[in-house]
Amino acid sequence: MTKPRQPIRSELGWSTPERIVVRGRDLPGEILGHLNLGDMAFLELTGKTPGPSESKLFNAMVVTLVEHGVTPSALAARLTYLGAPEAMQAAVAAGLCGLGSVFVGSTEGVAKMLSETLDIETILSQKRVPGLGHPLHKPLDPRTVRLFEIARETGFYGKYCKTMEEVAKRKNLTLNATGAIGALACELGLDWRAVRGLGVMARAVGLVGHILEESRQPMAEEVWLRIEEEASKHLKP
Amino acid sequence: MTKPRQPIRSELGWSTPERIVVRGRDLPGEILGHLNLGDMAFLELTGKTPGPSESKLFNAMVVTLVEHGVTPSALAARLTYLGAPEAMQAAVAAGLCGLGSVFVGSTEGVAKMLSETLDIETILSQKRVPGLGHPLHKPLDPRTVRLFEIARETGFYGKYCKTMEEVAKRKNLTLNATGAIGALACELGLDWRAVRGLGVMARAVGLVGHILEESRQPMAEEVWLRIEEEASKHLKP
Amino acid sequence: MTKPRQPIRSELGWSTPERIVVRGRDLPGEILGHLNLGDMAFLELTGKTPGPSESKLFNAMVVTLVEHGVTPSALAARLTYLGAPEAMQAAVAAGLCGLGSVFVGSTEGVAKMLSETLDIETILSQKRVPGLGHPLHKPLDPRTVRLFEIARETGFYGKYCKTMEEVAKRKNLTLNATGAIGALACELGLDWRAVRGLGVMARAVGLVGHILEESRQPMAEEVWLRIEEEASKHLKP
Amino acid sequence: MTKPRQPIRSELGWSTPERIVVRGRDLPGEILGHLNLGDMAFLELTGKTPGPSESKLFNAMVVTLVEHGVTPSALAARLTYLGAPEAMQAAVAAGLCGLGSVFVGSTEGVAKMLSETLDIETILSQKRVPGLGHPLHKPLDPRTVRLFEIARETGFYGKYCKTMEEVAKRKNLTLNATGAIGALACELGLDWRAVRGLGVMARAVGLVGHILEESRQPMAEEVWLRIEEEASKHLKP
Repeated sequence: MTKPRQPIRSELGWSTPERIVVRGRDLPGEILGHLNLGDMAFLELTGKTPGPSESKLFNAMVVTLVEHGVTPSALAARLTYLGAPEAMQAAVAAGLCGLGSVFVGSTEGVAKMLSETLDIETILSQKRVPGLGHPLHKPLDPRTVRLFEIARETGFYGKYCKTMEEVAKRKNLTLNATGAIGALACELGLDWRAVRGLGVMARAVGLVGHILEESRQPMAEEVWLRIEEEASKHLKP
Repeated sequence: MTKPRQPIRSELGWSTPERIVVRGRDLPGEILGHLNLGDMAFLELTGKTPGPSESKLFNAMVVTLVEHGVTPSALAARLTYLGAPEAMQAAVAAGLCGLGSVFVGSTEGVAKMLSETLDIETILSQKRVPGLGHPLHKPLDPRTVRLFEIARETGFYGKYCKTMEEVAKRKNLTLNATGAIGALACELGLDWRAVRGLGVMARAVGLVGHILEESRQPMAEEVWLRIEEEASKHLKP
Repeated sequence: MTKPRQPIRSELGWSTPERIVVRGRDLPGEILGHLNLGDMAFLELTGKTPGPSESKLFNAMVVTLVEHGVTPSALAARLTYLGAPEAMQAAVAAGLCGLGSVFVGSTEGVAKMLSETLDIETILSQKRVPGLGHPLHKPLDPRTVRLFEIARETGFYGKYCKTMEEVAKRKNLTLNATGAIGALACELGLDWRAVRGLGVMARAVGLVGHILEESRQPMAEEVWLRIEEEASKHLKP
Repeated sequence: MTKPRQPIRSELGWSTPERIVVRGRDLPGEILGHLNLGDMAFLELTGKTPGPSESKLFNAMVVTLVEHGVTPSALAARLTYLGAPEAMQAAVAAGLCGLGSVFVGSTEGVAKMLSETLDIETILSQKRVPGLGHPLHKPLDPRTVRLFEIARETGFYGKYCKTMEEVAKRKNLTLNATGAIGALACELGLDWRAVRGLGVMARAVGLVGHILEESRQPMAEEVWLRIEEEASKHLKP
């Protein structure tokens, strides 16, 4: 065996025949029946069990990102399931692969930006401010309105939210849900490097829903046949 | 454009400038602040908002599957992140790709089996019964004990659980957590085709946790360097 | 560090500051400029450098699988690229995830079946024989005709090909390209466990082509917008 | 059905019952038996059949990237295969997901940079020049030496290669294989947006080789067990 150069350590969990401990909590005794799935995500990302206010806000943020209808990501998952129905995990994986800079990355962009500065002029001087604008929801994104309402109720509406609202106003653009969630992640003290992960975990939930629907009421084959025919029609003799 | 052969329909959601509706519920008004992430998953998979008992049990089942320490799936995600830190969604996707027949599929296997028969002799006559046995947790898996306790509290301990317990007893094997969750999925009336998805969505949460830890306290490069050196040592001059 | 239980060994390659050796060959001196990409794949899968006949046949087999137009797999890759253009490797990965039992797996099925038996009655007694039938190419698949022509030229047309041709005739079905390639893989002595990999590697080449086309002449956004609108139209007020 | 906003077109291929045409060539008649896998990749990326010189150089470039031993990408593929051996396409996909900015992206970085400027002072003024440096191969990368030798033989050693060699000399760093391949991609007139794809397609070939080896001579389980034990040892009672 080769010489270790560095120790290899993870703090996330361990088990013995009788015990299973995750993030320092006894899984059966302290987690199961006590934490919901959003709370468990909070524990994974922060090492702390959320209090009731944190739980309410964090769950709302993640729940917002679960289901956005027939997105490119949902279509990719459904088309993958069509070819490999025995491997639905790979269909979910295919759907997640597209959660990059265009659709979900803006949440991360907002959190990173706000972690670096809260100065509005500095933010406005950027070529493109993430978290602003929406093709459909104008002038207000109803998710932002509701998330900030919950933030106020739970005492987490603070400087990050205010900054984004001011920036949106100055730019005359909608503060969209990813912008609100990026700001709220900062209010909760989440590391910006985890923030894209909120969308990734939420969408994994939603994609399982799409694949279940696809198994009962399929659309992928029809999408394929239509598009294939149209795409090559101009080439055929 | 090509002629449509079949209608394309999804019941999962829709939006207009003012409204966003998921599974027939107004997202801002009826879901955000009301449903936690596990409840939202339940809604996605069943079309129903869970009651308090369903919520407690379903969340416990999914939470059980979030974090299993440094699994092959977590390692695959971390090694992927090492090469493409700008695309953490792809690292989570890589981790999910391995949730197949060996590690997570058994949950689905149990749910499918119990959907088809509850006859113990028929089950025992199978070459390999899914959901039984554990390398570490013997004779009892503490997660199964706790999940069935919650099932009793919430009124969902029923014929599917009893059948699996009897089968485990007759086989003299541990009823492991995937076996318990497969049975409980049947108690909740979930479609067996959605059951592998419970593990997939839960593990997506856990993998985001691993990637965040990897970004702060990395192990992937060390794993790679050690293994590469050992794997090729016998070939080198 | 933990105690090793088993040795970890790979025979695929090693390097020192001056040398890079792959499968026992000096990469710069014996491989680069000498082996084409198909030959290199043959070396990876068999440990042998192909002779001219093997090279011609194997390359033809793999080339057959590169480009099948706008398949579900190509669509999944393009839709993924739409969301994460900075991670084109993940778009190719998403496209590959769907190469399962429905579309590409049949090549593996044929090779596995023929590795187990060449008895035609045994094969005909199976509920579903892989490699037969095609929605478009009837009664002959022009790729099969050409691949078997190359097999005859190169001296590899043998008992596996004959068996599949006889089975197709008895079933009155087209021997499709995946059936031909499965048989030819056996003629070349490839391990059936590598045979699905022929389609996977070939399609990776084709998917890069699709993503390049998508970057210049996009279709993914239009596909998404059309399908999303149609899928939710019946739900909207 | 919804109103099309834009035409959907692909130039890559089409078929009728009798014919299959890829990139304007008859697949059975003009491609199979005539083009090797690297030539087919060249056709996919450029729309042109390579001449003998282009074929030799392009195949050498891609072959260089097939097998780099037990890389993070190969480990991710093997660990994925451990959990889902029935879905080897997903294991290859998992391996590809990590071909991002750290390991394979530099090829793209070089091609993009050289497409924008050949001015050495401009290049040297960048904070980090891609394609330079290697932890093991110093002062020369034997693959670069050989690839440039082939480039000279085939008449493709030109201004892009010279620029990278001069930059490496001025920086006193190894011109590594990804740097050489990025420059050669420019010499061949490839679009820089396709260049990361060279590594992706090549590595797909190599990953199939790793998975075949894993199926015969496994290492993934041992890697997992060792790392898991070490990673959590400090937490256990």
